[in-house]
Amino acid sequence: MNAETYGKRLDRAQEVMRDRGIDTLLLGPSADLYYLTGIDAHVSERLNLLILPAEGEPDMIVPGLEAPLIKDGSGRISLKTWGDADVPADLAAGILSGAKKVAVGNKLWSSFLIRLQDRLAGVNWQEGDPILRDLRMCKDAEEIAALDEAGRLTDEAWMLFVTQGGAIAGLTELQALEKLKNISGDVGLDNPKGIIGTGPNSASPHHSGNDRVIGEGDALVFDWGGMIDGYFSDVTRSAHLGAPSEEYRKVYDIVNAANQATFEAVKPGVPLQELDRAARNLITEAGYGEYFVHRVGHGLGLEVHEEPFLVEGNTMPLQEGMVFSDEPGIYMSGKFGVRIEDAVVCEAAGGRRLNTSTHELFILA
Amino acid sequence: MNAETYGKRLDRAQEVMRDRGIDTLLLGPSADLYYLTGIDAHVSERLNLLILPAEGEPDMIVPGLEAPLIKDGSGRISLKTWGDADVPADLAAGILSGAKKVAVGNKLWSSFLIRLQDRLAGVNWQEGDPILRDLRMCKDAEEIAALDEAGRLTDEAWMLFVTQGGAIAGLTELQALEKLKNISGDVGLDNPKGIIGTGPNSASPHHSGNDRVIGEGDALVFDWGGMIDGYFSDVTRSAHLGAPSEEYRKVYDIVNAANQATFEAVKPGVPLQELDRAARNLITEAGYGEYFVHRVGHGLGLEVHEEPFLVEGNTMPLQEGMVFSDEPGIYMSGKFGVRIEDAVVCEAAGGRRLNTSTHELFILA
Repeated sequence: MNAETYGKRLDRAQEVMRDRGIDTLLLGPSADLYYLTGIDAHVSERLNLLILPAEGEPDMIVPGLEAPLIKDGSGRISLKTWGDADVPADLAAGILSGAKKVAVGNKLWSSFLIRLQDRLAGVNWQEGDPILRDLRMCKDAEEIAALDEAGRLTDEAWMLFVTQGGAIAGLTELQALEKLKNISGDVGLDNPKGIIGTGPNSASPHHSGNDRVIGEGDALVFDWGGMIDGYFSDVTRSAHLGAPSEEYRKVYDIVNAANQATFEAVKPGVPLQELDRAARNLITEAGYGEYFVHRVGHGLGLEVHEEPFLVEGNTMPLQEGMVFSDEPGIYMSGKFGVRIEDAVVCEAAGGRRLNTSTHELFILA
Repeated sequence: MNAETYGKRLDRAQEVMRDRGIDTLLLGPSADLYYLTGIDAHVSERLNLLILPAEGEPDMIVPGLEAPLIKDGSGRISLKTWGDADVPADLAAGILSGAKKVAVGNKLWSSFLIRLQDRLAGVNWQEGDPILRDLRMCKDAEEIAALDEAGRLTDEAWMLFVTQGGAIAGLTELQALEKLKNISGDVGLDNPKGIIGTGPNSASPHHSGNDRVIGEGDALVFDWGGMIDGYFSDVTRSAHLGAPSEEYRKVYDIVNAANQATFEAVKPGVPLQELDRAARNLITEAGYGEYFVHRVGHGLGLEVHEEPFLVEGNTMPLQEGMVFSDEPGIYMSGKFGVRIEDAVVCEAAGGRRLNTSTHELFILA
């Protein structure tokens, strides 16, 4: 991204702020800050804070010792440095004096917000997310190219893992995950990360992996990804060690059909909750509704979980350029879990998968 | 830690809350939460929130899909689960109804706080840090044992790195750091992490490492650590590739003397700012005051940076059991930087270093 791109993003943020009657936006180190300015700042107890007014140019409060690290991609930011013996909340409050309606980036620590609230009476404090969401939800061509490449490499890693990765029986969950992450790094993904659940642990959707030894008869759930140019992939594949039960096969097919049902529902204008309903109705009709314990998906981009969320109650319409996960799952407590997840981009004619590695059930050794 | 330990910590938190007139404490996933309950929860856009009243037993709001992961070490928490189509802020606001003065853990995202503020008029919102600081600053014997072991292993890794690690000339910063991290993992530290600065980059205190190739004449700063039982080490050693300049040697000796001056100032009752002054006065008298651009240290425990902070303006007295870094540095922009950091525990008779690897200047190849 160049200064022109960041400049346009800042302009657009200010436009959205004016539309919403917000006079100032505060962003700490975050994907939001990176999106608007290219600044990849350090989250810590030392305040780093972009202060963007609805009109005019932004300031950024930066610890003096980190000032050399700030690379302002927009070229529009005035840095206001502070030393360890200073009180940065006073500095921020000074810049904010006169602000009436201030939006705050969603991940800024509460401690920073409370210190500002103590210093600035009468301000109306708002969540910043609606502003950034408007900017970040719909990806441009350059962003989609990065997401496409991240998806393609993640698929390549999966196929290498299942065809040439060697036996996983006898490995611990964390060892098997490490193997998949290493392959993902080898094919070119930055910073591969993931979670794994095996056997009964696969029925806990956010189980992240431990020292459980993988053995014959285990259901396996791998949920992982990596980055290209800062944009994430996020894929889940379920597999089985040794022959699965009939129930497992049945559940696997239902989850796969639900993934397809959500995919087929993708079209500009469709309320986001309809994507959740497409998978949920199918799973409920198959008799497993109570075991599908999470939303069907989430936005994907500079963060693994970002707006928009594909969840009951979200009536926002799908738009071209939205990229999100399609990841129904069924979790049979104490027995097994199955989840199948691809990233999908909404195009004019409908959905296009960024992940195309087969949904065929692999029986591993 | 067992249920009795967590129970005592919760009791003590409630006692401090009553002393401070706080009726409710809110903690998201954090070291604070882990310290009080043993719960290592997942930070995300899904609300996980401990709600601890000053009297009575705590509730915890947990996403249903993550409930299987919550291991309540205290055995005293009532879990309140929510599904993806629910509004957890409503659930939290219901539990908080009637609260007048609520303290909020320092790292809880602002988005969660603002949603509660919108729902609960008339509440006085406070930073939670003063409560947790009172509990966590002074380490007990079990915590100090973990910190001691983490320190000892980090020293062992450093000595292996400089004596048997092989040449680093020609490596990139990130490759050299990786080597040190790998050795740290091999000797038994969990999750080794760190930063590195070489050549001119060493003059930027928080430079984290990049693809710069290390070569003859480079100053080197390694700042790294790992964990034992969740407790961190944090060590910095400076070294040089090939013969250093006279100025480098002079600066190295000043930084080392400043480290020693702070160490010798450690004694219960001494205001924390005096530890910063001890190093700063020495460096200033040597003519380098303007190049020592950060505080002399920070608390160390379940977090790499935690209370207490050794900084001008902090008049809190040192207490037995406080563990903190002693890390003066001098940064000559465009040329080189030197920082020497050990962890120190305050004991009745004075300071005791948790790191004892030599401060001798290593000339590496």
